[in-house]
Amino acid sequence: MSESMMGMRRSHRCTEVSQENIGQKVTVMGWVQKSRNKGGIIFVDLRDRSGILQLIFEESECGSENFAKAEKLRSEFVIAVEGNVVERSGAVNENLTTGAIEVRALSVRILSEAETPPFPIEEDSKTKEELRLKYRYLDLRRPDLQKNLIMRSKVATLVRQFLSEEGFLEIETPMLNKSTPEGARDYLVPSRVHPGNFYALPQSPQLFKQLLMCSGYDRYFQLAKCFRDEDLRADRQPEFTQIDMEMSFVEVDDVLDVNERLLEKVFKEILDVEISLPIQRMKWQEAMDRFGSDKPDLRFGMELKDVTEVVKNVEFVVFKNAIEAGGSVRGINAEGQGAMPRKKIDALVEFAKGYGAKGLAYIAIGEDGSYKSSFAKFMTPEEMNALVEAMDGKNGDLLLFAADKNKVVYNVLGALRLEIASQLGLLDKNEYRFLWVTEFPLLEWDEEQNRFTAMHHPFTMPMEEDLYLLESDPGKVRAKAYDIVLNGTELGGGSIRIHQNDVQEKMFGVLGFSKEDAYEQFGFLLNAFKYGVPPHAGLAYGLDRLIMLMAKEDSIRDVIAFPKVKDASCLMSDAPNVVDAKQLKELAIAIEMMEQEQ
Amino acid sequence: MSESMMGMRRSHRCTEVSQENIGQKVTVMGWVQKSRNKGGIIFVDLRDRSGILQLIFEESECGSENFAKAEKLRSEFVIAVEGNVVERSGAVNENLTTGAIEVRALSVRILSEAETPPFPIEEDSKTKEELRLKYRYLDLRRPDLQKNLIMRSKVATLVRQFLSEEGFLEIETPMLNKSTPEGARDYLVPSRVHPGNFYALPQSPQLFKQLLMCSGYDRYFQLAKCFRDEDLRADRQPEFTQIDMEMSFVEVDDVLDVNERLLEKVFKEILDVEISLPIQRMKWQEAMDRFGSDKPDLRFGMELKDVTEVVKNVEFVVFKNAIEAGGSVRGINAEGQGAMPRKKIDALVEFAKGYGAKGLAYIAIGEDGSYKSSFAKFMTPEEMNALVEAMDGKNGDLLLFAADKNKVVYNVLGALRLEIASQLGLLDKNEYRFLWVTEFPLLEWDEEQNRFTAMHHPFTMPMEEDLYLLESDPGKVRAKAYDIVLNGTELGGGSIRIHQNDVQEKMFGVLGFSKEDAYEQFGFLLNAFKYGVPPHAGLAYGLDRLIMLMAKEDSIRDVIAFPKVKDASCLMSDAPNVVDAKQLKELAIAIEMMEQEQ
Repeated sequence: MSESMMGMRRSHRCTEVSQENIGQKVTVMGWVQKSRNKGGIIFVDLRDRSGILQLIFEESECGSENFAKAEKLRSEFVIAVEGNVVERSGAVNENLTTGAIEVRALSVRILSEAETPPFPIEEDSKTKEELRLKYRYLDLRRPDLQKNLIMRSKVATLVRQFLSEEGFLEIETPMLNKSTPEGARDYLVPSRVHPGNFYALPQSPQLFKQLLMCSGYDRYFQLAKCFRDEDLRADRQPEFTQIDMEMSFVEVDDVLDVNERLLEKVFKEILDVEISLPIQRMKWQEAMDRFGSDKPDLRFGMELKDVTEVVKNVEFVVFKNAIEAGGSVRGINAEGQGAMPRKKIDALVEFAKGYGAKGLAYIAIGEDGSYKSSFAKFMTPEEMNALVEAMDGKNGDLLLFAADKNKVVYNVLGALRLEIASQLGLLDKNEYRFLWVTEFPLLEWDEEQNRFTAMHHPFTMPMEEDLYLLESDPGKVRAKAYDIVLNGTELGGGSIRIHQNDVQEKMFGVLGFSKEDAYEQFGFLLNAFKYGVPPHAGLAYGLDRLIMLMAKEDSIRDVIAFPKVKDASCLMSDAPNVVDAKQLKELAIAIEMMEQEQ
Repeated sequence: MSESMMGMRRSHRCTEVSQENIGQKVTVMGWVQKSRNKGGIIFVDLRDRSGILQLIFEESECGSENFAKAEKLRSEFVIAVEGNVVERSGAVNENLTTGAIEVRALSVRILSEAETPPFPIEEDSKTKEELRLKYRYLDLRRPDLQKNLIMRSKVATLVRQFLSEEGFLEIETPMLNKSTPEGARDYLVPSRVHPGNFYALPQSPQLFKQLLMCSGYDRYFQLAKCFRDEDLRADRQPEFTQIDMEMSFVEVDDVLDVNERLLEKVFKEILDVEISLPIQRMKWQEAMDRFGSDKPDLRFGMELKDVTEVVKNVEFVVFKNAIEAGGSVRGINAEGQGAMPRKKIDALVEFAKGYGAKGLAYIAIGEDGSYKSSFAKFMTPEEMNALVEAMDGKNGDLLLFAADKNKVVYNVLGALRLEIASQLGLLDKNEYRFLWVTEFPLLEWDEEQNRFTAMHHPFTMPMEEDLYLLESDPGKVRAKAYDIVLNGTELGGGSIRIHQNDVQEKMFGVLGFSKEDAYEQFGFLLNAFKYGVPPHAGLAYGLDRLIMLMAKEDSIRDVIAFPKVKDASCLMSDAPNVVDAKQLKELAIAIEMMEQEQ
């Protein structure tokens, strides 16, 4: 049975009814959260996106027909109710906005009946995610997900408003593009009109936004859908949304300034959190040296210390070999953790190995000042003391050391630092520590491809003072690139772009592109640069990640209406699926299964 | 040579400099529109997105080095100039915002040189579109395209602001979906993780927005990218943007009301055009009868007249046969066109044939009241007089008649009416005539598939009073559907949705879906409906088309930054293109060319 709402008109959402409406007649519509008959009086909690309102049915008031309907109500029925607002007869419910009032129903229509849902619609669901994703339309009824998506909508609105006021134009760039081998794996779209040809879904609007600067649009932004066909991690989705912007006639400070004010506004208006400006800046090298990471979490200390000089003459071969091979020995001091049980220390050693360490050396300092150590036997007492002193080790501290190539040392200690902080509960989700990381290396060496690849992308401007190194020692060149980091998560990043054809050509040279390759892939951008290009720069944020941190969630799936799971499928719709042979024939493609790998 | 802008900071965009700045020093940056040396004084028109500003270089003021640079300036060079704002020495240029001032340059930096562009950067370009699309980044510099894209950005911002204020949440729906055979042809995306499976790009967020209503989001909107792999016409693109919305607990009037206020606001704020509300409404049947179209252009009359009754007894076989076959005879009166030359009338006959007419009967009434007619010989003078009278034919009018099945008659006369109005210059782009067309047929008969298909989509609610006909005479059932029409263009459309499982099942039955088919394709929506679904309704606008009309353009390519051409390719980037064999192998697909059709 489903009744029509014809002739009825909702007067308020549930929590829009307030004490100011006492004495008035209202019409509310929504879902039955729960319903119970207590001594001939039926209490119904009505839910809509605004919250919950209590309805009371008494037969003497609403008549027998309506009362009979009210008796039938079960969870998730959709109803429309007309009634009078009164002060709550029972105890005021402090947990509800509408806790001081209730609506005494005069009539009810059942707009839709409901089967019992496969899991309860409630906050902090204990139901496993797989089931909730299958019934995402029910999961999305839960107040926590509603809160997240409402926040997401508000943030998007605010970002757009702010950027519009700052003179940015929102310009849509195409979704069906040319595939370029550089970067992550593209999602491809076969062309029907051009058999054997493919579009690629955009990994970012990078080339287009640079073209828009060449075209004189001055300031561009877009909340852009981007796609990467990579294996998924907890914080990745095959499609994601990017707050994407580009500006002409600017230097680094201009980009950072407008973005700081954007973040300040968003955090103030949405979370009532004050970000004090300017946001701290740190050079990439300093971030690596102090935190072993290019996205350091500043909510706690436990900084890395370089003890290479201190141990350079010791006999301990692990240290010795690392230093001789051009690496370093560095440590962190987990203060007050000197009594950590051996088992837990061993687990940390294993954890470190997962990040590429061959092992992890430690010194646990007892409350009495004694050392328990994995490598004391290779050291003199003086050497041990010097090392402890260099680490500011105090009684009761735990010192952990990695010795390897710098890259591995950073990686291991950076991860270890976070792991220990997490174990110790030092990561407070209510604290927001922002940081700009600047002066990234322009290039990184790719062992696999045996060539340099661009750390950000091939259009990133080198620092003027390093330009002379671009061909002689490219690994040393720093870039005019910047990342914005929040609590150890990279929220976004960008750079000043190369706008000089000669620099761009050198850059492609360093990356191992022939001129032909470069034109084949990026020809339209390089051609555009011939006709007058302004200095320009940009930045892009991962919107999903930003909202995840703002909503204090651990997974971006909790801030996306219809997310995919790890294998890039949708548990609700069963996408991807098989399609008609006719569809494939029209596209001139055939399925060609690889033989199972043995 | 390209100089760095380091240390310089733009103080104003070109037209932000005004008479108020006279006596001040400013720094402006932009493109050289033109440059000329007149008696040792160099005049430069500097262009940015805001407009044009005149710069003056005199060697005595700027020094020889800067003057030498100024002498080198050519069109499209990008420069940064510091100078003093003064009253214009020559005649005030009324065509420029900055026509009363000029900037006397003190220094100039050439930020980027430029080759001579392949076509001039100017308004109302005479360059053929193909070349302009190849160099789209240059075409986009032209002020008319900049005006269009700036308008588009403003409209999008305004729409978002309005809908947010009305309680709509912007919620992103996925791009990688399940393919469903119903509707237009999908763009497919092969899955790498699930070989042999495909995603489909969305034709619209229809199912997702209905799910969001089931999930209690109450009011949803999105500026959604949609995709259809159809053969392109002038006003179609493979990807397009839709202002998409959905509302819960509403009736038709609620949807129309919020959208009328939206349109009122957009037209007022962007074009300073007042739309008087409420917007006129017309039932579909009336629109067809009076205008031969479900998207009538109301800027002129020339309405259709049904003369079937008048001619039902005449001997003229064309009329006779049409009427006997259940069709009709209708005409339009092209007032004052009685003297149209035979050649032009013949062209109209050919035009009509293009719309399915077997021919076109006409009566040209001379200024003396005499008739020239293609069929007078089959008619008595009395019959001719009666027909002319029924058509309100006056001396000097041209009457045109179609006789066929109703569908053909509507189609032919609807098109003819527009064609003649266009020839007569009756289509004033400055006039905006809005119309709601309501009470569409729910279904239309598909000759090819030999079944009914949904005129809007399978979730459209039938009118309650016609529900009893759904199984007995489905062709007669009217839908709670509405289109918004502007000047003969369908801007958007929508409907009340079916929210009752039993009605939905009947609907699928009429469409020839088995229950299995229905669940296979739309299972997650039908399942969602089992758990409590609110009455809901929605509407979607074609944003590209809306902007095209607002910008008074004839092609949506002129309001899209990077459009595709008819064969769905991008002339600038050469998308789609061939991809590496490795990419296809990873996706488990192979290209399988069909043999050339003979």
